[in-house]
Amino acid sequence: MRTFTILMILLSLTMAPTAAEAREGEVPMEEVTRRLLSEGMQSGQAMALLTELCAQAPHRLAGTPGGRSAEALGRAWMERFGFQEIRQEPFPVRHWERGPVERVELSAVGGSVPLATCALGGSVGTPAGGLSAPVIEVQGLGEISERADEVKGRIVFFNRPMDPTQVSTFHAYGGAADQRVHGASVAAKHGAVGVLVRSMTMKEDDTPHTGIMIYRDDAPKVPAAALGLRSADLLSKALTDHPDLQVTLELSAAEHPPVEAVNTLGQINGAERPDEVVLLGCHLDAWDKGCGAHDDGAGCAQVVEALRLLGALGLPLRRTVRVVLYMDEETGGIGGKAYARADARKSESHVYAIESDRGGFVPLGFTVNAEEPIVDRLRRRTLASLEILGIRFMERGGGGADIGPLKALGCTNVGLVPDSQRYFDVHHSDNDVLEAVHPRELQLGAVAMAALAYALANEPCGSASPEMR
Amino acid sequence: MRTFTILMILLSLTMAPTAAEAREGEVPMEEVTRRLLSEGMQSGQAMALLTELCAQAPHRLAGTPGGRSAEALGRAWMERFGFQEIRQEPFPVRHWERGPVERVELSAVGGSVPLATCALGGSVGTPAGGLSAPVIEVQGLGEISERADEVKGRIVFFNRPMDPTQVSTFHAYGGAADQRVHGASVAAKHGAVGVLVRSMTMKEDDTPHTGIMIYRDDAPKVPAAALGLRSADLLSKALTDHPDLQVTLELSAAEHPPVEAVNTLGQINGAERPDEVVLLGCHLDAWDKGCGAHDDGAGCAQVVEALRLLGALGLPLRRTVRVVLYMDEETGGIGGKAYARADARKSESHVYAIESDRGGFVPLGFTVNAEEPIVDRLRRRTLASLEILGIRFMERGGGGADIGPLKALGCTNVGLVPDSQRYFDVHHSDNDVLEAVHPRELQLGAVAMAALAYALANEPCGSASPEMR
Repeated sequence: MRTFTILMILLSLTMAPTAAEAREGEVPMEEVTRRLLSEGMQSGQAMALLTELCAQAPHRLAGTPGGRSAEALGRAWMERFGFQEIRQEPFPVRHWERGPVERVELSAVGGSVPLATCALGGSVGTPAGGLSAPVIEVQGLGEISERADEVKGRIVFFNRPMDPTQVSTFHAYGGAADQRVHGASVAAKHGAVGVLVRSMTMKEDDTPHTGIMIYRDDAPKVPAAALGLRSADLLSKALTDHPDLQVTLELSAAEHPPVEAVNTLGQINGAERPDEVVLLGCHLDAWDKGCGAHDDGAGCAQVVEALRLLGALGLPLRRTVRVVLYMDEETGGIGGKAYARADARKSESHVYAIESDRGGFVPLGFTVNAEEPIVDRLRRRTLASLEILGIRFMERGGGGADIGPLKALGCTNVGLVPDSQRYFDVHHSDNDVLEAVHPRELQLGAVAMAALAYALANEPCGSASPEMR
Repeated sequence: MRTFTILMILLSLTMAPTAAEAREGEVPMEEVTRRLLSEGMQSGQAMALLTELCAQAPHRLAGTPGGRSAEALGRAWMERFGFQEIRQEPFPVRHWERGPVERVELSAVGGSVPLATCALGGSVGTPAGGLSAPVIEVQGLGEISERADEVKGRIVFFNRPMDPTQVSTFHAYGGAADQRVHGASVAAKHGAVGVLVRSMTMKEDDTPHTGIMIYRDDAPKVPAAALGLRSADLLSKALTDHPDLQVTLELSAAEHPPVEAVNTLGQINGAERPDEVVLLGCHLDAWDKGCGAHDDGAGCAQVVEALRLLGALGLPLRRTVRVVLYMDEETGGIGGKAYARADARKSESHVYAIESDRGGFVPLGFTVNAEEPIVDRLRRRTLASLEILGIRFMERGGGGADIGPLKALGCTNVGLVPDSQRYFDVHHSDNDVLEAVHPRELQLGAVAMAALAYALANEPCGSASPEMR
């Protein structure tokens, strides 16, 4: 017991906040965190921003009119709050739209039964009037080659649920999403004419969840749609009773010629090292279901609010803190790649990037996409202050899809980790609406990002590189 | 860096789980936690239990017909799951009911404006037809004596909001609830004829939130009611414009003669030390608003489910693990006191008690009502395993109101700590319904309680007493 106590004391000393390092005119992180909390929870703007986004651009896939509205709104936010160096960087982006028709019907004696469905993102359409075929239910990609004879000429129904025993619903999602992403090509290679996929959710309703699917070059492109969970269960039961029943699938989805989209940038210039950037990222595009309130409207509201807070408090920043509203994460992560390879990056050094793209739920921690010594350093420098906000951990893990390409430029990527239990209830579906977002939870995430950005923007120069320690 | 690493390694050794201590037939806590997680998240019953409770006894204040229905259901659950030594311990309890009338109206030119209101728990009623008086708005109890002249003959309107800058909403609640609990007597002592209190919530709707108020002996009993937030804001604005306006308050609330209620007990007998008890507690009574889904239906579903899980997995338990469904926490904590002083306690030793009464949201940690060395010991023995469930901390703090009286019997009290951001949106109001509870969040709390109860029931004998270490 005594040994443990001494260890705890020693440990707490090594983990002490960096007040001693604060230079003239600089404010210790703990004090900054308390100021951000006070300002943010009394006069926070995150929920108001998200409300605007959901009202003005509820459907905002890259390349669509809604996408362009969102880009304009993002720029307007930055101008409203007096961000510096506001600009929009254009790049070509794919342009997919689902169109007006998405229909799945079960042929039954005396009529047909409609199932709750929506096209998967990137799917081709069907002929007008749809295609009808018998259905084979499988639990995963591996079954396709084993049952190749049965697949030919049929619609393949991927019905493996997310694993409820995963505490992190992202792990459960990761364990099921291969069916959605690759199911169509794997099935088509063996002669399937279409694909239905159980929605990636554990919420027991009948709302279908879309999301990207990818065609491989070695298989025909067949249409692919999601089923709501109740519809998936109904189809499964119907197939048990009547293995030969027919399903009709009709989709008007189509890929259009590429168009131009923009990433929207704004910042507060660093006072000492303006070319060293601490980036706050999110993606402004969203699937055309609900209003993308959590995915990733929440992230956009948070990063804009985080920079607004830093500016409103007039906090000194050695490095530049930049917000990037990426356009296109959902249909291929094109925005993140375009940002990283833009010419403007050549004269800049991205030291850290922090992304919010896991929903606007109560923030619990941060994950750092780096080796443990770097994670350790950040933990010791920041976690004691972040605990004021209820942030309990900083550990190794992913940063985010949009900032991913910055890693090749030497950037240390960090992801905000909110609670995940409710995220896949809404993700990519008509459930992802403003009412599913809690104002305080959203705002706390913005405050946490601002506090961490402050610490990283003021980290003593040189310490960002682990080899210099 | 190097010193830190060595410290971390040493620390992790002292925190290692207790596999080495496991005796024959016993299962290490980490393995038990994984089994509980697997069983709990696949076949969990917590949400089904809560659904039953909300359907059969939505309003269940102690002493009311709903309260008796809840007591019967609690017993039925225990019989259904084969708990041992099922019994109900009777005690006298106060019996308050709000009756059919609760009305607040603002007199205005050309008519009156109704405000959203409900009686505070324990309030007396008004004369039939209500009482009308001018209103004085104050921000806290301290203002009353300063403005005694203005208080006399008026209705006092306590309008201090919960502090939004508190990350824990329980702290924000604690900072505002004195107005609700003591406002009536403090105001009546200076001649107030009634009291209105801004609801203890930060949700910007107009749902009034009830909760206990207490009359002191040195002041007349005046009626007291809560206002929804929008109504409170409306009244405040109206008073600014028209300081002399009248409000009519009518309540049919009344205290009835005391009746009998019961605490409901069931357990799995300890194999080695059956008289040493690890108690899992909650309160079965709830305010007559919504269905008390979070407060504290969630806790009741969790503790019953936790013991069901321990039984279903057939885990060896040295000590007895007992569920107690306390009846009456809300109107005075009478159930907790009655349990602690019951004759049956004399032949038992309560070693640990774990309560769930902070809502059924995602579980984040546990607080232990003990000195730091004891908290340390529990942390080292259990936290590494609990982290599998997303439990991130075990620290000093409250256990719970129902188990509070056990502390005097030498019991170490522990409280489950779920996320608090949404709790006071629903607490004591018509918002506290089943739909506000997330099945996975609820179930994870039950699993966490089961895992901790397992560890505490099997803690090597003697180690429960800190002085023996």
